[in-house]
Amino acid sequence: MATAQGVIDINSDVGESFGAWPMGYDERTLASVTSANIACGFHAGDPATMRETLRTAARLNVSCGAHPGYPDLVGFGRRDMAMSPDEAAADLMYQVGALWAIARAEGVQIRHVKPHGALYNRAARDYVLALALARAVRSLDLGLVLVGLAGSAMEQAAGEAGVAFAREAFADRAYNSDGSLVSRSRPGSVIENPAIVAQRAVSIARNGSIETYDGGRINLVAHTICVHGDTKQAAQTALAVKEAIATASIRIEPLWEIVS
Amino acid sequence: MATAQGVIDINSDVGESFGAWPMGYDERTLASVTSANIACGFHAGDPATMRETLRTAARLNVSCGAHPGYPDLVGFGRRDMAMSPDEAAADLMYQVGALWAIARAEGVQIRHVKPHGALYNRAARDYVLALALARAVRSLDLGLVLVGLAGSAMEQAAGEAGVAFAREAFADRAYNSDGSLVSRSRPGSVIENPAIVAQRAVSIARNGSIETYDGGRINLVAHTICVHGDTKQAAQTALAVKEAIATASIRIEPLWEIVS
Amino acid sequence: MATAQGVIDINSDVGESFGAWPMGYDERTLASVTSANIACGFHAGDPATMRETLRTAARLNVSCGAHPGYPDLVGFGRRDMAMSPDEAAADLMYQVGALWAIARAEGVQIRHVKPHGALYNRAARDYVLALALARAVRSLDLGLVLVGLAGSAMEQAAGEAGVAFAREAFADRAYNSDGSLVSRSRPGSVIENPAIVAQRAVSIARNGSIETYDGGRINLVAHTICVHGDTKQAAQTALAVKEAIATASIRIEPLWEIVS
Amino acid sequence: MATAQGVIDINSDVGESFGAWPMGYDERTLASVTSANIACGFHAGDPATMRETLRTAARLNVSCGAHPGYPDLVGFGRRDMAMSPDEAAADLMYQVGALWAIARAEGVQIRHVKPHGALYNRAARDYVLALALARAVRSLDLGLVLVGLAGSAMEQAAGEAGVAFAREAFADRAYNSDGSLVSRSRPGSVIENPAIVAQRAVSIARNGSIETYDGGRINLVAHTICVHGDTKQAAQTALAVKEAIATASIRIEPLWEIVS
Repeated sequence: MATAQGVIDINSDVGESFGAWPMGYDERTLASVTSANIACGFHAGDPATMRETLRTAARLNVSCGAHPGYPDLVGFGRRDMAMSPDEAAADLMYQVGALWAIARAEGVQIRHVKPHGALYNRAARDYVLALALARAVRSLDLGLVLVGLAGSAMEQAAGEAGVAFAREAFADRAYNSDGSLVSRSRPGSVIENPAIVAQRAVSIARNGSIETYDGGRINLVAHTICVHGDTKQAAQTALAVKEAIATASIRIEPLWEIVS
Repeated sequence: MATAQGVIDINSDVGESFGAWPMGYDERTLASVTSANIACGFHAGDPATMRETLRTAARLNVSCGAHPGYPDLVGFGRRDMAMSPDEAAADLMYQVGALWAIARAEGVQIRHVKPHGALYNRAARDYVLALALARAVRSLDLGLVLVGLAGSAMEQAAGEAGVAFAREAFADRAYNSDGSLVSRSRPGSVIENPAIVAQRAVSIARNGSIETYDGGRINLVAHTICVHGDTKQAAQTALAVKEAIATASIRIEPLWEIVS
Repeated sequence: MATAQGVIDINSDVGESFGAWPMGYDERTLASVTSANIACGFHAGDPATMRETLRTAARLNVSCGAHPGYPDLVGFGRRDMAMSPDEAAADLMYQVGALWAIARAEGVQIRHVKPHGALYNRAARDYVLALALARAVRSLDLGLVLVGLAGSAMEQAAGEAGVAFAREAFADRAYNSDGSLVSRSRPGSVIENPAIVAQRAVSIARNGSIETYDGGRINLVAHTICVHGDTKQAAQTALAVKEAIATASIRIEPLWEIVS
Repeated sequence: MATAQGVIDINSDVGESFGAWPMGYDERTLASVTSANIACGFHAGDPATMRETLRTAARLNVSCGAHPGYPDLVGFGRRDMAMSPDEAAADLMYQVGALWAIARAEGVQIRHVKPHGALYNRAARDYVLALALARAVRSLDLGLVLVGLAGSAMEQAAGEAGVAFAREAFADRAYNSDGSLVSRSRPGSVIENPAIVAQRAVSIARNGSIETYDGGRINLVAHTICVHGDTKQAAQTALAVKEAIATASIRIEPLWEIVS
């Protein structure tokens, strides 16, 4: 698959506070990214938090998208649930619509949808689920870009459903030689040194390839690189990634502009 | 306030099943009404139920609206909550958007918003809350009609916010002489005889007035009459109301067509 | 494993109403059983419903137990969740304690614990989870009997944890030759004819064996037979089972008396 | 009412994390108090958090109690709900039992119950609710002490229900001359200077009186003083209170020992 080189998006999950519980350094993180994935109330976020997050993102000129997850607050949407594709599709439309409406009231456009956590992971390998989600996005007919793991079942499903797809890469995660992520349980699977993460991000954005866990090299053509902002250090890493990409003279643009 | 006489809407709350728990006789009720208020997941309903309800309503050619409530499943949204107007407004937008999106995927238009239960009751007398809700509906900019108790704070707030408002009347509830509903705790406050309910509905639709609890008579100009479908008998009463109104040669039309 | 023949318990899941949503024919079902598994609020039930159910069970002299499930109301605890054994154990203790306290206030003793739905099914085959649950029951030190599928990982785990275990059999479900249940998706997996269900219950209770799906016969020594009461017909089947067992001169006693 | 002077308890609300969201400085706060009020899952806390909090409290030798609240996670139990006294009582028993069971598995005794937030405030002035809660605690028959605002409806209700009651005072809140708390919306209602809070705590513990908002002085005989630990500064204030009381040669003991 061909991708416009020389341009990349940086995305981050934000709006993950819930009620009285703050989470993440959204203000700081949003200063380093071009696309924001906003939690929609099922695994994190609540209506008032969503509104607040949309306002902050709009003020910082960051493109907004929905970040729907499993209905599991206690587990933060990270515990896989044996939901039918039909149920998952209805849940996705519900969450996207909820965010879309609050955004509309704020004069903000929703541009993309990125499933969260266990839903994202399952959809990366379960084509039937991925297709149900992609068709749900398509049926909303709101011009939304679906974001998922580069080269996964979600990419294939988006193609089948006729939905624009943004290939996502993770600069702070080790990759297997088949393009899947190395399990978090293995040492070295998560890269913490900001300089190395930034350098990997540049490698992805410029070369469309990445060094693998076992020392080889694979193609990893991506439209967007995910950075985290849940800790102060993560927010600093996000900034390092942005600056390294800018220094490498690669343009940074919102994913929906790159993909559309 | 002038209202087009000779035309009335009949509305009912539907889609109040939740997960494995069915509630109401929606199919039967929807055959007797022109506007359906669909629960949105906070006090009843869930994404899959919402989709199913939208399909049934569309098949029976019933106009669809959102029925947002307090976030209180156990209490069915009937327990008043001391929520700030801002929180209530965000919750309303969230729920309306969720239904709007699922409806869009089904090719169905959402036409109105009717708050549920304790939220409806509080907004009928709390102008600050009512104004927050009316402005939330306005800010969505979806051409939605707000439905509330005729003559209440909600009507006043809708006027202030510049939102189309449908005056609702209850044919099966006794009225005080000030236009408020007689508390359910008093004997005779809920009228169960289908023939009497139907006759009161005709009185409202034709004369714009109703006999009060104390035997007097007040003006009650309404755009829509609420009927219930939560029991088999309630669904029969709904049918009786529809037939009595039709027999009286009063046109029955969806509220959004009457009000817009 | 030796089991006292000539005696059996009949159990049913009850208390599955939730808030405004009724479910099942508890009053009728409880008249046919000796042990009641009461939902604890995570997949069904709520505090007021639990209290009401305990009162009904006590009035009808039925032994009470907890029926903890996954935290998934919309899915009724039937969707498997990738919860850690530690989380599942904490959730179980939470739910059992909640029921235990309300029961204590009503002067009712809790005698057993039977996991619900997807949690039951996973614990039947996942020994690590089963052991965490069995140890949780053990650590409560309330003399509770753990109820699970006869011959499953739960039985093995209960032995390891030193918890009394009641072997459960399903008279209305077809069995594979290895003692597992035939998937509900296959025709004939659920037996609906009350007379046949009753006859199978007698076979289990008297002979400790059952005819399998493929026409063979396996040992199925059980302490308790599960009947359902979620539909009117199910409640009738429960009565048929009870009467057939009584007619066969097999004693019917609460499982905790049989096992302790 | 006579109270043993020369001895006081210091209590704090802890265990208010929820799932992935941490809250408060429990470890630090628990080092300064003798009684811990542990959230039970309705407004904060979850089963795994409850277990963790019980372990920490036990390790630091702090007496444990339940902190039940309204079923309102998003609102943190701070939004008043129009729940019936019967529903509130069932919810309280449910939450206390859940904590009691997890504590039992950890070898920890639950000693008291302190309602949270809006439930606490309503029970302080609504005698019917307070009596329902006090009777619920009594019916559990676990020897639990009920903790509530000194001189409030809860104290009266506890007396009527025959439940041991611990009078609570707030060293960091301004008092009206009738013994009620000055609304948080008024300037100076919350006292932030650690030294002043500590000095007020000593005044309560030694003299059984406190200076009021309008400069007068009222009796405020208390068994326990509430300190907060939700911010780093709050946890420091808690330590200041403890040290000031110890320096004043007033004994610090768990409330259940003082009251029983």
